[in-house]
Amino acid sequence: MRQQLMEKLEAKQDRIIEIRRYLHAHPELSFQEENTARYIADFYEGKDCNVKTNIGGHGVVVTIDSGKPGRTLAIRADFDALPITEETGLPFASKNPGVMHACGHDGHTAYMLILAETLIEMKDQLTGKIIVLHQPAEETPPGGAIAMIRDGCLDGVDHVLGIHVMSTMPTGEILYREGATQTGRAAFKVKITGRGGHGSSPHMANDAIVAASEFVLAIQTIISRRLNPFDVGSITIGSFDGKGSFNVIKDAVELEGDVRAMTEETRVLIEKEFRQILDGLAKMFGITYDLAYKNDYPVLVNDVNLTAFVATSLKDSNIHEVTAISRCEQQSPSEDFAYYAKERPSTFFYVGAMPANGICYPHHHPKFDINEASLLIAAKAMGTLVADYGNYKEE
Amino acid sequence: MRQQLMEKLEAKQDRIIEIRRYLHAHPELSFQEENTARYIADFYEGKDCNVKTNIGGHGVVVTIDSGKPGRTLAIRADFDALPITEETGLPFASKNPGVMHACGHDGHTAYMLILAETLIEMKDQLTGKIIVLHQPAEETPPGGAIAMIRDGCLDGVDHVLGIHVMSTMPTGEILYREGATQTGRAAFKVKITGRGGHGSSPHMANDAIVAASEFVLAIQTIISRRLNPFDVGSITIGSFDGKGSFNVIKDAVELEGDVRAMTEETRVLIEKEFRQILDGLAKMFGITYDLAYKNDYPVLVNDVNLTAFVATSLKDSNIHEVTAISRCEQQSPSEDFAYYAKERPSTFFYVGAMPANGICYPHHHPKFDINEASLLIAAKAMGTLVADYGNYKEE
Amino acid sequence: MRQQLMEKLEAKQDRIIEIRRYLHAHPELSFQEENTARYIADFYEGKDCNVKTNIGGHGVVVTIDSGKPGRTLAIRADFDALPITEETGLPFASKNPGVMHACGHDGHTAYMLILAETLIEMKDQLTGKIIVLHQPAEETPPGGAIAMIRDGCLDGVDHVLGIHVMSTMPTGEILYREGATQTGRAAFKVKITGRGGHGSSPHMANDAIVAASEFVLAIQTIISRRLNPFDVGSITIGSFDGKGSFNVIKDAVELEGDVRAMTEETRVLIEKEFRQILDGLAKMFGITYDLAYKNDYPVLVNDVNLTAFVATSLKDSNIHEVTAISRCEQQSPSEDFAYYAKERPSTFFYVGAMPANGICYPHHHPKFDINEASLLIAAKAMGTLVADYGNYKEE
Amino acid sequence: MRQQLMEKLEAKQDRIIEIRRYLHAHPELSFQEENTARYIADFYEGKDCNVKTNIGGHGVVVTIDSGKPGRTLAIRADFDALPITEETGLPFASKNPGVMHACGHDGHTAYMLILAETLIEMKDQLTGKIIVLHQPAEETPPGGAIAMIRDGCLDGVDHVLGIHVMSTMPTGEILYREGATQTGRAAFKVKITGRGGHGSSPHMANDAIVAASEFVLAIQTIISRRLNPFDVGSITIGSFDGKGSFNVIKDAVELEGDVRAMTEETRVLIEKEFRQILDGLAKMFGITYDLAYKNDYPVLVNDVNLTAFVATSLKDSNIHEVTAISRCEQQSPSEDFAYYAKERPSTFFYVGAMPANGICYPHHHPKFDINEASLLIAAKAMGTLVADYGNYKEE
Repeated sequence: MRQQLMEKLEAKQDRIIEIRRYLHAHPELSFQEENTARYIADFYEGKDCNVKTNIGGHGVVVTIDSGKPGRTLAIRADFDALPITEETGLPFASKNPGVMHACGHDGHTAYMLILAETLIEMKDQLTGKIIVLHQPAEETPPGGAIAMIRDGCLDGVDHVLGIHVMSTMPTGEILYREGATQTGRAAFKVKITGRGGHGSSPHMANDAIVAASEFVLAIQTIISRRLNPFDVGSITIGSFDGKGSFNVIKDAVELEGDVRAMTEETRVLIEKEFRQILDGLAKMFGITYDLAYKNDYPVLVNDVNLTAFVATSLKDSNIHEVTAISRCEQQSPSEDFAYYAKERPSTFFYVGAMPANGICYPHHHPKFDINEASLLIAAKAMGTLVADYGNYKEE
Repeated sequence: MRQQLMEKLEAKQDRIIEIRRYLHAHPELSFQEENTARYIADFYEGKDCNVKTNIGGHGVVVTIDSGKPGRTLAIRADFDALPITEETGLPFASKNPGVMHACGHDGHTAYMLILAETLIEMKDQLTGKIIVLHQPAEETPPGGAIAMIRDGCLDGVDHVLGIHVMSTMPTGEILYREGATQTGRAAFKVKITGRGGHGSSPHMANDAIVAASEFVLAIQTIISRRLNPFDVGSITIGSFDGKGSFNVIKDAVELEGDVRAMTEETRVLIEKEFRQILDGLAKMFGITYDLAYKNDYPVLVNDVNLTAFVATSLKDSNIHEVTAISRCEQQSPSEDFAYYAKERPSTFFYVGAMPANGICYPHHHPKFDINEASLLIAAKAMGTLVADYGNYKEE
Repeated sequence: MRQQLMEKLEAKQDRIIEIRRYLHAHPELSFQEENTARYIADFYEGKDCNVKTNIGGHGVVVTIDSGKPGRTLAIRADFDALPITEETGLPFASKNPGVMHACGHDGHTAYMLILAETLIEMKDQLTGKIIVLHQPAEETPPGGAIAMIRDGCLDGVDHVLGIHVMSTMPTGEILYREGATQTGRAAFKVKITGRGGHGSSPHMANDAIVAASEFVLAIQTIISRRLNPFDVGSITIGSFDGKGSFNVIKDAVELEGDVRAMTEETRVLIEKEFRQILDGLAKMFGITYDLAYKNDYPVLVNDVNLTAFVATSLKDSNIHEVTAISRCEQQSPSEDFAYYAKERPSTFFYVGAMPANGICYPHHHPKFDINEASLLIAAKAMGTLVADYGNYKEE
Repeated sequence: MRQQLMEKLEAKQDRIIEIRRYLHAHPELSFQEENTARYIADFYEGKDCNVKTNIGGHGVVVTIDSGKPGRTLAIRADFDALPITEETGLPFASKNPGVMHACGHDGHTAYMLILAETLIEMKDQLTGKIIVLHQPAEETPPGGAIAMIRDGCLDGVDHVLGIHVMSTMPTGEILYREGATQTGRAAFKVKITGRGGHGSSPHMANDAIVAASEFVLAIQTIISRRLNPFDVGSITIGSFDGKGSFNVIKDAVELEGDVRAMTEETRVLIEKEFRQILDGLAKMFGITYDLAYKNDYPVLVNDVNLTAFVATSLKDSNIHEVTAISRCEQQSPSEDFAYYAKERPSTFFYVGAMPANGICYPHHHPKFDINEASLLIAAKAMGTLVADYGNYKEE
């Protein structure tokens, strides 16, 4: 089956690219992907599969049932875009000003639609079921995955696979990692309130800027002294909003920040210490605070056994466009595929998509672009895993 | 002469109040006091004095020459208003939205015009010259005094006197202090520039918020460890402008602040240490900075001997509305009268102006008001000093 | 009487110096002044006065009762020495190794003994009573004054006077100040306890050095932001005892420090903020602490009226060795005379004692010395005040 | 050969233990291991091998030459002890007060001597050469390895193997890891000098405790903001020597600390930032400093290929006392075996030695002990690798 699948996908490469370009030109922000969702649903019109729309918002869940016994594998592609003004100058650049597919989700959806179509065509060669998860809102917490799960998209699913195309990795390479692979995250907003006053009379006021500065420094010690040096964690205060008049003591400032960790234990530890330092600060300086601290995407933990299967299957398949398959380092961004991986043994892996000229812009950059050749590779890689899945042995 | 002067002023009390109310209703911001300056100049129209306009901007300098030999005494009244939206509900409240006489300069000008008119009428009883300094732009550095001095307003002047009406001191009281009396001041703006980046990769960035927070704390030690505890000094960071995105490391932040000191030595010391800490910070964190550090109003130092004369003369004069004349504490606000006091032996003193009902709002408050009875007291007090000035003996 | 008193004192100058040198050679530490106290008591042996020993420890209280009605004036001289190894090379240098009269208390006692002797001789010219307070333990909190007061040394006393000879002020000058004149003080010892551990595993420990460093910086803000800039206050951490091994995380450190203030309100404010910051620190870093915070000598507040009397009386007396009598700045050291001043209207003033060659070492320096000519001046000044005291009018 | 080697070692288990107990009773500090070195050299007396003494200090290098062509494998055992007072109560406890084998080096030497003796006996079954590195001074930088290398101990050597027995890992388990395995390290001592003074006059002094506290906090940001969160690094200030008097401003304090990193790049980065912060501090506070910053043991990087061989060989050998062979986490302590690993492809691995009762004390603890059964396991494991070494294929 694998051979035939590869040939069929090759024959449809132009359509993958065509779809990708259409989606690229019509990006939609997270939670607002109405047209994209409709486009996806329309694509399956008349095809031999079950399509459910409005799953966890704009999610589309497509079931390809072989009619034969067997396990159920879910494969996921996300389809939202970002609030970025495109600067690529591409002929198919965004027609939606201020919104851009700057993370490759257009490519994910394009390869997935064509792969799904092909799997439907070859349904009699499959066993069990394949469920395609077209997921919205990956870019913006709380994300689309959690809502789709809540709406039952993993019911009956045994395993989940996902791919991200990577503009910063050479086209032809596939990378994977088992265990903790992408960071978990939290975001916080804290308002520190003292008491305003005149600069010449600090004793009549309670300087919120001084207290907040102490806080910024005190939380550095969470990373430097409370974390195991072998663990991964970071805290960034990205916003210190304390604009005021030069000679007026500021009554309140607002900080916003971001927390990353590579284990749930670390994420929990950081939150605990963060709250403790804030409590201590309040006491120390007689300030009050309002804190909104929100854990969002968890650590993405790939299943060890399933990831080994992914690596072996891909190595064995000898996809001729693939030049290397290797284990990569942990990745600093977070990814809401992590929610699937918390529910089911899952693997999320990477397909190199660096432009042919070697000039690449990072994801979320206004000039971000991918090598479209990567999309056929993604389709073939995911297709290979679907084809091999019947042979996968859980430990 | 004193007796006659007091009687004349009493007779003109209604006009003082009338002028004050007119000015109160027509406030103008510092450096924009065109109409007020014209109103003042017009007032002297046809009076036996020399009027020079556009001195140091909108300044008006009026010379009352007795024609007899003697020293020259300058008496100063300021006339600018503040960018405050009045909330007094007075019938003569500001007709210029967002601008308000919330510091009593309307009263200063009112009593001074009537006093000047009266002195002109009694010119033959004077010796030497009286110069009336109608000064604009006291509220806003660099202030109006420095420009008027540059334009020669102190040429030939021996001494300078000035009054501030005080809403927070009981009407009927007069307060004075010799030596350092009001703080000197500096203002600064400093931009601290690191390098932006993504919250999950602090090592690729250089966090300007962390560096600036260190700076805020480090400068506290100027006050706590570098100053003589017996000296007066303060540094306020009134603005910490570091608004950004929660998960983006901030590339640059801008701080603004205010420095107060009670001696020039302290002011110099604070600036030196401030610059040194900033230099150290740059080295420490590899950041760069742009600093605008500006000393503006100097410490106001009243002449010891002249102030003793002021106190004695006022005590001896037995102005019947005056209930107490006493030495006061040093005052935390700054005042650009300090520039005159640097050039000539001068005294700046305070006339209580608390409303009769005892409810007072501080200067620069939207509900600030004065007891108009204080204006006659100011006129009488300053008139007394003018009358006695011939007897003043310098040590 | 004044004239005769001056002459008698002049005649006894050699004996003042002789006594001073004897005492200088035989210094004793605070609370251990057994021999000095006996020497003092012996001095009065056979003299017409009442001598009480062991008052508040080694204190000696001598009552000179004129037998006539009148008020009671106490005059105080302290007699303890310091734990300093003398380096003056004087022929009468300390014979008690490691102990030295490096603050002039030997001189205080010497002039006072001779003055007392003379007053006894002239008792019939006095009215009321003179009480001589020979006080031990001025140098070491809790000090000798408080214990002497507890033992009744001020019973029946109306006013108290005291003198300090000053090596840093020119001989011939007398200085005084009314109101808050010398700082009040507190001392603290705080042990901050975290949890020890190995340097490579900070997460298993709780670094007491980091927490204590935060504390050192946080308390700077008490001075810089909580104090009125016009008030006087300082906090010094004089000892940070955190010696350990380079690669072992310290479990506990001990800080010791010193607080100064010029009003009781400031002293109370500093203590309150200090405790609050420590509480906040405990919460912030999960450390515990043991704090011993002890207010000792209060602010020395000289009575305004009595001080005016001192100044006037001294100016009027024309002591020919005195070249200037002037009002001085506030003084940073603390002085346990402050306890008397809390109980009775009192004045503590300064007699210049700079060596004739102009080379002076500060008090508490191993090379500290005084101009012995200052002792006759002290005797004459205090004698003058005793002689004039009958004429003193309280307001 | 492997079978026979295992049998021979088993037969000599008592002698391993006997030697270990002798060495345990006679510990010597790093760089002072004269008797231990002589004991080792004496052991080889009359055996068919080449013994070189005084290599890099007290090092002993033993060459077992098979006479046949082949590669040369070095196997290393360290033999120094620690400045710890033993509290085990063992019958063979240290007879050298204050010195203790609290890290198992006695066991390393014991198993190695018996293994070497056995290999000499079986020399004809070997190929190439085996070089036994008996190394002193592992515990104390600069360590013994670097000096032995300088003296040529690796000349002609192709690979190096080493074992550490671990009281905290179950006896029967063997653990290994490829790549960066134990931290690199630096140690520093920094004296920060301000200017002493009296607590009541901070402006006359320059408070070294405040400056040093700022430093302690500022270096936290190296870990929290300059390191890649995926990298491993720590900085500990283990000693803050600032003991002084409560009311005297400290002129100088001395800090000592420890740096750990898992890559050389990180070690270099930390040092660079550390120096920069110190330079910045000097500027900021006008202090001076003396810094001794010394990188000592590098990151221990096990060769990937050789470590795979070690794991495979041990797994294949089925040593019956071995219950598990697994890949472990990175280890936080540093180890001077790292110097060999910088020069030659090397592997350093761990043999569990937890006492049979499960009660274990960490290394360097006064009650540290090992399960002596681990020594036969170590001998067998290292023996197995020597036996298999002929088959090792480099990539």
